[in-house]
This record gives sequence, C-alpha cells and structure tokens, in this order.
Amino acid sequence: MTHTVISSATKEVVIGFDRPFVMIGERINPTGRKLLAEEMKNGDFSRVEADALAQVAAGAHMLDVNAGIPLADEPALLARAIQLVQSITDVPLSIDSSIVEALEAGLSVYQGKPLVNSVTGEDEQMERVLPLVAKYGAAVVAISNDETGISEDPDVRFEVARKIVNRASDYGIPASDIVVDPLVMPIGAMGTAGQQVFKLLRRLVSELKVNTTCGASNVSFGLPNRNAITGTFLTMAIANGMSSAIMNPMHPEVKQAIMAADVLAGNDKDCMAWIRDNRDPNAAGGAREGRAGGGRRRRAE
Amino acid sequence: MTHTVISSATKEVVIGFDRPFVMIGERINPTGRKLLAEEMKNGDFSRVEADALAQVAAGAHMLDVNAGIPLADEPALLARAIQLVQSITDVPLSIDSSIVEALEAGLSVYQGKPLVNSVTGEDEQMERVLPLVAKYGAAVVAISNDETGISEDPDVRFEVARKIVNRASDYGIPASDIVVDPLVMPIGAMGTAGQQVFKLLRRLVSELKVNTTCGASNVSFGLPNRNAITGTFLTMAIANGMSSAIMNPMHPEVKQAIMAADVLAGNDKDCMAWIRDNRDPNAAGGAREGRAGGGRRRRAE
Repeated sequence: MTHTVISSATKEVVIGFDRPFVMIGERINPTGRKLLAEEMKNGDFSRVEADALAQVAAGAHMLDVNAGIPLADEPALLARAIQLVQSITDVPLSIDSSIVEALEAGLSVYQGKPLVNSVTGEDEQMERVLPLVAKYGAAVVAISNDETGISEDPDVRFEVARKIVNRASDYGIPASDIVVDPLVMPIGAMGTAGQQVFKLLRRLVSELKVNTTCGASNVSFGLPNRNAITGTFLTMAIANGMSSAIMNPMHPEVKQAIMAADVLAGNDKDCMAWIRDNRDPNAAGGAREGRAGGGRRRRAE
Repeated sequence: MTHTVISSATKEVVIGFDRPFVMIGERINPTGRKLLAEEMKNGDFSRVEADALAQVAAGAHMLDVNAGIPLADEPALLARAIQLVQSITDVPLSIDSSIVEALEAGLSVYQGKPLVNSVTGEDEQMERVLPLVAKYGAAVVAISNDETGISEDPDVRFEVARKIVNRASDYGIPASDIVVDPLVMPIGAMGTAGQQVFKLLRRLVSELKVNTTCGASNVSFGLPNRNAITGTFLTMAIANGMSSAIMNPMHPEVKQAIMAADVLAGNDKDCMAWIRDNRDPNAAGGAREGRAGGGRRRRAE
C-alpha cells in the first residue's frame, strides 16, 4: 500500500488507499473571492484565520493555502498566510501557487512536511519545482497536463503522470511522495469527464500505484444542486481508488458522501466514524446537518 | 454494449452500461411486512396496488413482485399479483420467487418479456429454472452462489456467475438476457463487503460483459442513516459498472444519488434529467424532496 505522509510540526496525515479519505480544505484561496483578495492585499488576514478554524472544525484533515492575487507580492502573502495558519491550527498544509517563488517562500517558513501544489508535466515547470520539493523533503501534487494541454484521452494523461513520477525519481523524490491530480472537467460541459477520470484513476492506482487528489468542485460547475453532484463524484472516484481531494468540508452533503464512501471502501473500521456521526439524529454538527437542508449551512463569506 | 431488454405489453426497458440506471421497485414483497402478508393471504390486494402506483410515481422503471408468504398458495398469489399490477401500470416486471412453481405461474400470465428473479448456480435450480426462462423467452437474475454457499472471494463468485451464463447458453439463453446479482452483504457486519462487490462487478462487466443488479438495501442493514449508505453504495457500484438494482425508489436520497451517478457516468444526456429534477428548488416531488428532510417521505405502511 502506498502511503503519502504529510505533516505539521505536531501532526501527521497519511494519504493511502487503505486509509479514510483525506479532505483538504479549499477555502483559503482568493481566486474568485474579491473580498478575501482585497483584505489579504491590505494585510488583513482575519478571514484567512476564520476560514482555517472553520474548515478544521468541519473536519478538514489538511488545508490548502493559496495567495494568488493579481499585482500583489504573492510570495510574501503566501508565507505570511502559512505562518498564520500554522500558528492557529495543527493540520498539515498544502502550499498552493503557480508561481515558483511563492512556493519557495511558503516552503521556507513551513514547519513539517507539506504538500506542494503543484507541478505539471511541462519540462520547465518540472525543472524548477521538483528540485524545491526535493530540497525541502516535501510531497507534491502532479497535474496530468503538459505543454500540449489537457488531453481528453485518459491514456495520454496517464503517460504525463508517469513522466512526472519518473522525472521526480531523478531528483530522489519517491513515487509515494507524488499525489497525482487526474484533472476533473465540468461534467455539464463534457459528458465523458467522469468516465475519463475513473478510467485514469484505475490506471494510476493499479499501475503507477500513486495516491491521487483533485479539485472536486469543478465537476459540478454550471449545474443545479452542485453539492449532490460533487459528493457523488467523490464517492465514485473513491470507488476507483482516489485517496484525497481539495474540497469544501463545510458542505455537509459532500462530507456525508465521503464518510459513507469510507464505510463502503472498508476504510472506516467497524463503521465507528459513521456511527458516531449518525447515531443521534438530533445531535448538532457532523454530517447529519446536510439532511436537514441547505439553509443551515455555514458560509465563510 | 450489452443490452438486456425487458418489456410489458406496451413498454420496453433497456438495462445497459451506457443507459440510465434501472431502478426496480422492491416494495411489493410480503417478506418482513406482516400486514401486507396477512392481507394478500386473505385476498386483499389493495396495498399491492397502492405500492405499485406509488413506486412508479416515484420513478421506478420496473417493479419486482414477490408473494412469498408461508403456508399460502404462492403460485396463485403471485399470478394474481402480477395480473393486477400489469392491469394498472405499464412498467415491466421482475417475477420474484424461490419456488419454481410460483415462477412458472407468474410467467404463464405475464404480458411481455419479464425478468425472472432468480436462479442460483446450484445444479438442481439451474435445471429447473433455466428451461422455464428459455420457454417463455424471459431474462433472468443469476445469483452468484451455489451449493457451497456464498464465497467471500469475488473470484469464486465470478466463476459461479460464469457457470450460470454457460449453462444458460446450453438452453439457448444469450448472456445479454442474464443479469448477474453479485450478492451484497451488510457492510456493518463485513467491512470488506463493498470492495468484494466492486471487484466482482469490474470482472462481470469487463470479462463476462453482463448486466448486473442487486438487492441494494441489504448493504446498510444495522447502520444508522441507512439511506445515505445505500445511496452511496449504489453510486460506487455504478462507478464499477452496475446497471440496475432492486431498491426502494421512494427514498428520495437514494434516488438523488442514482440520478447524480447517471450524470457522472455520462448516461444522463446533457444532464437533462438532472436539470429538470433540480431546476426549481421549490418544486414538489423529484429528488429534491430528499434534501428537505426525511419527515416528508411517503410511506406505504
């Protein structure tokens, strides 16, 4: 069994086929969040703090931290956000940027072994990101596209993933420290998007034997009742071996779907987590909230 | 693509990997329903009628009809139930009994091409049921156990399924008229039950190329919040190729999970059914009901 170990100064999270699914909170990301972007740019990190605490309270095992704001000093902002989040929570982090300098700034202040998000199969990207991952002893998300774009053929995407795994090996990074993102397209725009990902997942798990992750909410873009589509997508991905996702743990419907999938994949020992979360129908919190309707969902902004 | 065509006098249903999942309503079954059993035995079929109409209204594509009541004349009851249901609905039926005489009584009155539920891999059973299936030109549910019981090894169960398909072929029954039931155990009692079924499904679909079904609700037996487990099980089974199930279409949570899985499997063209069912959050009926809470669920008894 392939285990990818990610850690903070005091806590380890293991991503693995035989482990409960790892939920990586996606909320700390100014992309598409104007208010958060404005605040971060002006040095106000109170919403970052609130989002971190709320996601951990909702059950996130890890948090993704992104500070991608146009015309801002992204390396400085990302480093500050990471230090702040690490000062108030103990979950391991995913350091998220498309700018290599920002990844390095984040890595230089991080306490523990982070997940670097991400490297693609583009040669220039691999040559810049992989040495950093090796230098800091991190794990890395490998995105299965390259200079030619994102292929609709899962076998082509598989070859891109294999190329990244092989290249990483040249830098001394083991396959167990690579978490492949098969790339999830909106199913409303491309009806084959689900089948593509499921097929690719089966090959990644059985042939490359790597752990996998994805940005889950993209799949339901443009459709009504998005959380039901996102949650169901994740259960079907888990059925094909996916072991983590970058998602919103504050959607109870999605969280409940993941917990049920853990039960059915045999990764919730004796169904303990499920029974604990569902025993008392009147209990507050947990996955049950989702069944009482969307109106009670907490929102960060 | 393997298509299993089932019909009533006026309506065809196609079970296939590339088709929307076929929901076979499970409610017309006196097993564990004392009131229904008592009524049927005394010639009162009003509840059978109500269950038939309610399940079709809830979206069932087919109905399973069972009249297994101890010390009753099951062949006569089953024939009567089938005639009654066919007189008030146009969905194709599954004729459900463990007694060969009852299956024959049901077949003799059925209008169209039914699904016979079921035959096991036991020699004596195959020798009695398969000639009937051939004689009436029916399709049949093949249960993957035999004289040795139900193996926990999916590869053993696969061989039982293969044996039934081969034996059926001797009687002129094509593989496309065999719908294999991989047998679903309660996950609360056996943590590997899900993985067993998923593995078996992949082999049944890729090697035997047969359609599949199961009694879905069994998987959640003994657990709290059963519908969430059953619904998630079905989505994971669909992700591994399952094409129908005998289930309760009146649980909106389960139905919503199936509809979302159809979208993600690429079998809800342009997401039309999903969008229709989810467009208006205030609309009555459909899958949305599930999200408003369990209190509004209709119950047949």
